[in-house]
Amino acid sequence: MSMVFSTSLRCRLPVLLFLFQGILVLFFVLFVRYDEHTDPASQPTHASPGANQLYAFFSLFQDIQLMLLVGLGLLLAFMKGYGLSAVAYNFLMANFSTQWALLVQGFVHHYHQGKVSIGLYNILTAEFAAVTVMISAGAVLGRTSALQLLLMALCEIPLYVACEWIILSYFQAVDVGGSITLHIFACYFGLGVSIALYRPGLRLGHPKEAPSYASDLLSLLGTMFLWVFWPSFVAALAHPGDAQHRAVLHTWITLSGSALTSFATSSLLEKKGKLSLSHLQNATLAGGVAIGAVADMILTPSGAFILGIVSSLICILGFKYLTPFLANRLHIQDQCGIHNLHGLPGIAGAVGSIAAILLVPDEAYGLQLHQVFPARAPPLGNATLETISAGEHLARSTSEQALYQGAALGVSFIMSLAGGCLTGLVLKLPFLAQPPDELCFDDALYFKIQAPTEILSMDQSCGDTHLPLKDSV
Amino acid sequence: MSMVFSTSLRCRLPVLLFLFQGILVLFFVLFVRYDEHTDPASQPTHASPGANQLYAFFSLFQDIQLMLLVGLGLLLAFMKGYGLSAVAYNFLMANFSTQWALLVQGFVHHYHQGKVSIGLYNILTAEFAAVTVMISAGAVLGRTSALQLLLMALCEIPLYVACEWIILSYFQAVDVGGSITLHIFACYFGLGVSIALYRPGLRLGHPKEAPSYASDLLSLLGTMFLWVFWPSFVAALAHPGDAQHRAVLHTWITLSGSALTSFATSSLLEKKGKLSLSHLQNATLAGGVAIGAVADMILTPSGAFILGIVSSLICILGFKYLTPFLANRLHIQDQCGIHNLHGLPGIAGAVGSIAAILLVPDEAYGLQLHQVFPARAPPLGNATLETISAGEHLARSTSEQALYQGAALGVSFIMSLAGGCLTGLVLKLPFLAQPPDELCFDDALYFKIQAPTEILSMDQSCGDTHLPLKDSV
Amino acid sequence: MSMVFSTSLRCRLPVLLFLFQGILVLFFVLFVRYDEHTDPASQPTHASPGANQLYAFFSLFQDIQLMLLVGLGLLLAFMKGYGLSAVAYNFLMANFSTQWALLVQGFVHHYHQGKVSIGLYNILTAEFAAVTVMISAGAVLGRTSALQLLLMALCEIPLYVACEWIILSYFQAVDVGGSITLHIFACYFGLGVSIALYRPGLRLGHPKEAPSYASDLLSLLGTMFLWVFWPSFVAALAHPGDAQHRAVLHTWITLSGSALTSFATSSLLEKKGKLSLSHLQNATLAGGVAIGAVADMILTPSGAFILGIVSSLICILGFKYLTPFLANRLHIQDQCGIHNLHGLPGIAGAVGSIAAILLVPDEAYGLQLHQVFPARAPPLGNATLETISAGEHLARSTSEQALYQGAALGVSFIMSLAGGCLTGLVLKLPFLAQPPDELCFDDALYFKIQAPTEILSMDQSCGDTHLPLKDSV
Repeated sequence: MSMVFSTSLRCRLPVLLFLFQGILVLFFVLFVRYDEHTDPASQPTHASPGANQLYAFFSLFQDIQLMLLVGLGLLLAFMKGYGLSAVAYNFLMANFSTQWALLVQGFVHHYHQGKVSIGLYNILTAEFAAVTVMISAGAVLGRTSALQLLLMALCEIPLYVACEWIILSYFQAVDVGGSITLHIFACYFGLGVSIALYRPGLRLGHPKEAPSYASDLLSLLGTMFLWVFWPSFVAALAHPGDAQHRAVLHTWITLSGSALTSFATSSLLEKKGKLSLSHLQNATLAGGVAIGAVADMILTPSGAFILGIVSSLICILGFKYLTPFLANRLHIQDQCGIHNLHGLPGIAGAVGSIAAILLVPDEAYGLQLHQVFPARAPPLGNATLETISAGEHLARSTSEQALYQGAALGVSFIMSLAGGCLTGLVLKLPFLAQPPDELCFDDALYFKIQAPTEILSMDQSCGDTHLPLKDSV
Repeated sequence: MSMVFSTSLRCRLPVLLFLFQGILVLFFVLFVRYDEHTDPASQPTHASPGANQLYAFFSLFQDIQLMLLVGLGLLLAFMKGYGLSAVAYNFLMANFSTQWALLVQGFVHHYHQGKVSIGLYNILTAEFAAVTVMISAGAVLGRTSALQLLLMALCEIPLYVACEWIILSYFQAVDVGGSITLHIFACYFGLGVSIALYRPGLRLGHPKEAPSYASDLLSLLGTMFLWVFWPSFVAALAHPGDAQHRAVLHTWITLSGSALTSFATSSLLEKKGKLSLSHLQNATLAGGVAIGAVADMILTPSGAFILGIVSSLICILGFKYLTPFLANRLHIQDQCGIHNLHGLPGIAGAVGSIAAILLVPDEAYGLQLHQVFPARAPPLGNATLETISAGEHLARSTSEQALYQGAALGVSFIMSLAGGCLTGLVLKLPFLAQPPDELCFDDALYFKIQAPTEILSMDQSCGDTHLPLKDSV
Repeated sequence: MSMVFSTSLRCRLPVLLFLFQGILVLFFVLFVRYDEHTDPASQPTHASPGANQLYAFFSLFQDIQLMLLVGLGLLLAFMKGYGLSAVAYNFLMANFSTQWALLVQGFVHHYHQGKVSIGLYNILTAEFAAVTVMISAGAVLGRTSALQLLLMALCEIPLYVACEWIILSYFQAVDVGGSITLHIFACYFGLGVSIALYRPGLRLGHPKEAPSYASDLLSLLGTMFLWVFWPSFVAALAHPGDAQHRAVLHTWITLSGSALTSFATSSLLEKKGKLSLSHLQNATLAGGVAIGAVADMILTPSGAFILGIVSSLICILGFKYLTPFLANRLHIQDQCGIHNLHGLPGIAGAVGSIAAILLVPDEAYGLQLHQVFPARAPPLGNATLETISAGEHLARSTSEQALYQGAALGVSFIMSLAGGCLTGLVLKLPFLAQPPDELCFDDALYFKIQAPTEILSMDQSCGDTHLPLKDSV
């Protein structure tokens, strides 16, 4: 990494962001109008205010926003001198990606008669898209500039929308909590980018990469926020009623299994049985990633429990053995271990969804098969419990549905990895303010940090290196 | 500032608080009774439990409490040695002011037949009143004692209730999210107090005023909490149904516009394009302040977006150019920059409400004009879409409504500034434990801080000055 | 305390946890099935999705989880070098105890035809049981290993379920927010354990016991989370409608009274009127503990207010005078002061419930007496306002109900204290990795803490003692 190119964001970041905001304003002015839930003139005369779509998911929406901005922000803030960047860039990417997804999804899914209809539901689905970017960024956190991260978002969002369309609309695969469309996609896209941005100079680690006591504690708090609100995330798009209730119940059970298994496994693998913070911060959430693909199915409570235990196990084994292997042998640097938290448990969830489809008989769903598997159920008109039990009229057999789940896994994996690698090549363009190796993982490079003594007290061992970067107040 | 008067709170703070609690107990015992939503005896025989008013806003209420106590508390905790005071005093003021507003609003709005009826709704509106005190305090944070802050609350709450009555009941202006009644009022009241409490000795700044790395990070987390729950705050009092949905949607859009614009503008204005934490902590929220006056109107999504961008711009420009000007030329010290976050965006919102009223045709509201503009709509009995489109029977024209919005802005500005100046004069009374200049911005003055070494490690450069203040454990 | 036995958790913690997870998996596989709210096949044909039980308490459930994992975790993190343990062990105990309570309560309350039905409601009630363990742990925090805490949970949960059954089902006492069944039980169980684990070596305190500036701030933030969501906790199990509304209203009022009283009392009792952080962190919540037993009764708003003031007073007096007395004279060490926050206010709440039952006439409840006092109301068929006012047909008189409340208090106190002492004796078994005196209150003993310099900067005065414990990264 040479230092020929400036790492200053001046001009470049403002130009990109103002240009982007200009395009968005234009999009809003020319195309966006209220949808039927927000336009007063299109309310039926005797509409009950309580029937407005807002109330179906507003509190879930708030839960999810808290997860993403506070929970994920804190979780990423585990490096001792990179907490401000983690929280601020996470926030920046959340907004940039959500706005960009509003535009892309607007034209793909909500475009009618020359207009894009908008309500809070659009924001919710756009935030799901944004999550992919925020996860992918974990692979290259601290080694990229804000410019690079935003450019990554520009590339990733359209690919995500395309991939999701193939999986959910074309394949009609089932993935209510996004194990396949979201976590697996985000993970391998991020790793693809990381492959392209490989830095041999950081092969042996970097002094600023390590957590401090305080940053470890904050990151663990981030895990708590994510753990608490994960059921809201998984269940937000489930069919209201028992399906949504199942999604919440399964998610809690699987997360709880992951939590205890993480403590057990970490203590087993570490020296003197001490607990590793990075294990607790990540693996306790692994079940939540895996449950996404099966959350509203009849997984049975025990199935959810076992999935949580397995996910947490493979997550910690990934941290212990796979991450070093990927970094040293395959030159894939994965800063936050997203492969362990999102990749491996995501695959476990996809495999679990195939198993659950093949093993659970249709009649267990009663008349509600179509709520969970829209592609499988017969037209509602002539369905009865008997015809469904007899498998009559079913549009798709269990093995066909299982096949589509497998296809979804494959498509998500290939599209994201290929897309990530290509995007990574773009991010190597020289004018993107990429930090040189020695200035990686350092808030002082892009943030006006007030007093140098504070940095010293947070991290005395390498405080000197900060001094040339500081600003005077 | 002389040190003749003691800064000890002993006796004075307990006396004030116990006296206040005694008065409140008396008020509760003599006047307060359950309202029709909390009194079991007044429930209709076949009332559906789900119809209780509680469920219309309880989750919004919790969101707002989290915003105020955690979000605002953390945001204010940006000074390196004043975080405990920021969080604790914010909590103290929230409770003191809400209780005081319960009494004042109780007699003004809920007094019937010698009794004041109370339910959770009273607490919600009283907390809105309390927010004004918590915002105003930002102007003088660190330069006032708890006694002074509580005395300020005693003066500010009745004036707020009066001002709100003039604006909402007498003028029937529209301000569902409180841009005018709450943010503008709170801002100029606080600046008024600050004018009266001007300290020439702090003209050149104070060594303890600066943030530390850790306090900047916590303050940014406070911003995240505020950002996430701001839609709940703005929409809490909107009419249920599409109006509330619009309020939430507009608030999200405007906040998102503010967020990206803040990153762009901060990077543009700072040296080497580095991001300023105080810009990110504040200006990302500016749109939320501005949207209050227009949140449930037909602003269009693009209008909300543009308002967010503009608010964030003027907020950062305010921090960069206006705050130093006010401090140096007009002797108005604004510790937390409330003029930039609450004053300027509040004015933008008021102006925006006038524009939205004048530019949007009545028929866009269909039959729901009265939900947004209670003063404008005809009696519901004979209203039809045709008569409303024709402007018949309308009690108030668009330009009249616009005029009242302008009058509301003026009244809020004048009442708060004058009231603040007068209150500030009261706060200069000598027995209020005001800290001397050199002991400002220091938790150790009013809090029993345990071990001096901790303070040293948070702030080594001026640790010595703490030593004479410390207590032994 | 000798150091003969190893403090390493290796093998012992994993074995216990994996064994426990194995038993739970077996329980889930053999016994657990969906309940009628999560099983699709048992939905009525035209069930309204919105009628699913999930929506009655899901947002309360999320509030409570945030309280327990973030709020309580942070509150316990007040010791300068024990924050990671506080948050992580709190999380560990929450999951372990909830799973264990799922099993115990499942067989006691939800076992029909050889199966245990499960839905999110089971998780909610199991979490209430888990809270007792998390509170009890406060008495011995920092002086026990994870193994000991989990063993304590194994003993405490079945006893809690038995005690709760006696109080709520057999006595039919009223305690919607758990003052008696939960707070008093948890407190005296914890003190019982602490008596058995008395350490003379810590009689004079320990250098690592003290808070730091940062840990005090985080702990205060924990209080904010608990304070904000306490109404959700108290009201979660109240009867929907006005009873739940009353529970929320009372809890807010009582907490607010506690908040202001805590500031007043702390300032009165401390040197120079300075505020004590431990008072603010704890006593501001005391009213919430006390209100549990009376939350849905007709306590009147003034009653709630006075209860909050009294609870906060006795909590601070407890910290100031009783805790030292218990420690020095009775050899009861109470690390977090749970006797002040849970014991004394819990007793105040129980006494308050007796007073409220004796003083409020039945007719004040109208036809809803049975919602609050299931044991008192006549069969619904022949009840009218007149018969109830006349006291006819009432199954239980006010004085009988009051007697049962008193009996509940006694049973909770005796069962928990005795059970705690016995459990404490079990915890003294030598292979439980109990830390020796000099390594108490130290995260480095059980956690792989990354860089020693960080610990130094958090706590320089005793940094040396950490060095032999540290791991290399």
